Amino acid sequence: MAVEQGAKPIRFAVLTPNEGSTEIIDRPIIAEAPIAIEYNGIGYAVMMATPIDLQDYAVGFSLSEGLITHPDDILALDTHQSELGWILRIQVPHENAEKVVARARQRVSESSCGLCGMDNLEEVMRPLPPVTAQIAVADAAIFAALSALRSHQTLNAITGSAHAAAFCAPDGAILMTREDVGRHNALDKLIGALANAHIDISAGFIVLTARCSLELVQKTILANCPMLVTISAATDLAINIAQKSGLRLVSLARADSALAAMPRNG
Amino acid sequence: MAVEQGAKPIRFAVLTPNEGSTEIIDRPIIAEAPIAIEYNGIGYAVMMATPIDLQDYAVGFSLSEGLITHPDDILALDTHQSELGWILRIQVPHENAEKVVARARQRVSESSCGLCGMDNLEEVMRPLPPVTAQIAVADAAIFAALSALRSHQTLNAITGSAHAAAFCAPDGAILMTREDVGRHNALDKLIGALANAHIDISAGFIVLTARCSLELVQKTILANCPMLVTISAATDLAINIAQKSGLRLVSLARADSALAAMPRNG
Repeated sequence: MAVEQGAKPIRFAVLTPNEGSTEIIDRPIIAEAPIAIEYNGIGYAVMMATPIDLQDYAVGFSLSEGLITHPDDILALDTHQSELGWILRIQVPHENAEKVVARARQRVSESSCGLCGMDNLEEVMRPLPPVTAQIAVADAAIFAALSALRSHQTLNAITGSAHAAAFCAPDGAILMTREDVGRHNALDKLIGALANAHIDISAGFIVLTARCSLELVQKTILANCPMLVTISAATDLAINIAQKSGLRLVSLARADSALAAMPRNG
Repeated sequence: MAVEQGAKPIRFAVLTPNEGSTEIIDRPIIAEAPIAIEYNGIGYAVMMATPIDLQDYAVGFSLSEGLITHPDDILALDTHQSELGWILRIQVPHENAEKVVARARQRVSESSCGLCGMDNLEEVMRPLPPVTAQIAVADAAIFAALSALRSHQTLNAITGSAHAAAFCAPDGAILMTREDVGRHNALDKLIGALANAHIDISAGFIVLTARCSLELVQKTILANCPMLVTISAATDLAINIAQKSGLRLVSLARADSALAAMPRNG
């Protein structure tokens, strides 16, 4: 899908403080659409996302949710556009479909299944595996990736409002970039694109143009990528969970400085 | 809860391009925690949010989800902190609890309940009511609110990474502000705070320091607030749905200009 599908032209009146403006402009606006994800005919989730690179998204989302372990677990993928949005119809082997039902059950909690808020907290905060991958990345490589990033943000160049997730070699060279109005979607698209291209995500690092909340750290850890760089600030929880799993997290990464959290007993 | 609960001090090493830095800094980092929401003992959702103003959040979230229609529908609210996060234990009348179970059922879709992706799309994109409230807001009032906003962002002043939702009188005076690491949480907190204070949300407008995606427009329309101003860009879907419901949406609202989408046949 072309990047142009991620932007729609919209006509605006320009307002100004002195009320004298009669200016009209046409501006490309980032596309957002509901994406319904089905496995073997079972509706699993509806995500709000920018409808480009949906093949990568299907693979990355499935990997991040723990529903598949390899792109080949997806036997067939149908991308269907309807008037209301998009449907990703994914076929997986029978044993994966059982995970789908189990995960869907986990996400609902009615009195009949006995789940209460405490159980739900334990589910959200379940321990993550340690990151086993290790790479050596010089600080200069981080700043090289940051300065190269803008030229890879093709949708953002059009709309000014797309998040990017980029995968970088240890020397900072950007190998792949994916974009979306939602930062977690951009990351899932990148994870899927790397898997589809047989690029080993544990042999490089990820740069995100976003604030770093827990879920971005969770996805990166589950993918066994050893290092995450975010342009905006991280939350306290994101930093704590990254340290527990051994993910190297660099945040507030700007042109001339970036922050690496110190160990809490350091 | 004091705004200080929304920030945690963390120690960082400062990285620089020339690798010569040995600078260490302490910086307040915005707090993010899982908030499990229970109604009458039924676990409903876990939201990631900044754990301040949780009483407002409980009311605003319940209103936005359509589970209550008035703060008095909440008979009791217990805010419990555990090691893993927070639990909001909300007591509602029996008829409201039935809505909780019905909404929880809607959100899951297993083969046994026959829901597929298309049904899920229809649920997400279900028609919204028209906004019936009407107010007259001069362009100058929008820019007055924007220039006053920063002084109301107390958590952002500490952390640099909090979103704000502010409610403004038609002349642009800011009447109430709530903050959170998540823009949708900031809006729910504001909606709850206004309801708790018996301030009529249909008699003013809301300013958000965020990009404007569909869910922010949905919450504003359901609250019957007639106007939403967002500092960053809106998505195409947010603009379309705002126009359909008669919500006045102003986006990319900066110090000297802002954008109002023109009617599509104009």
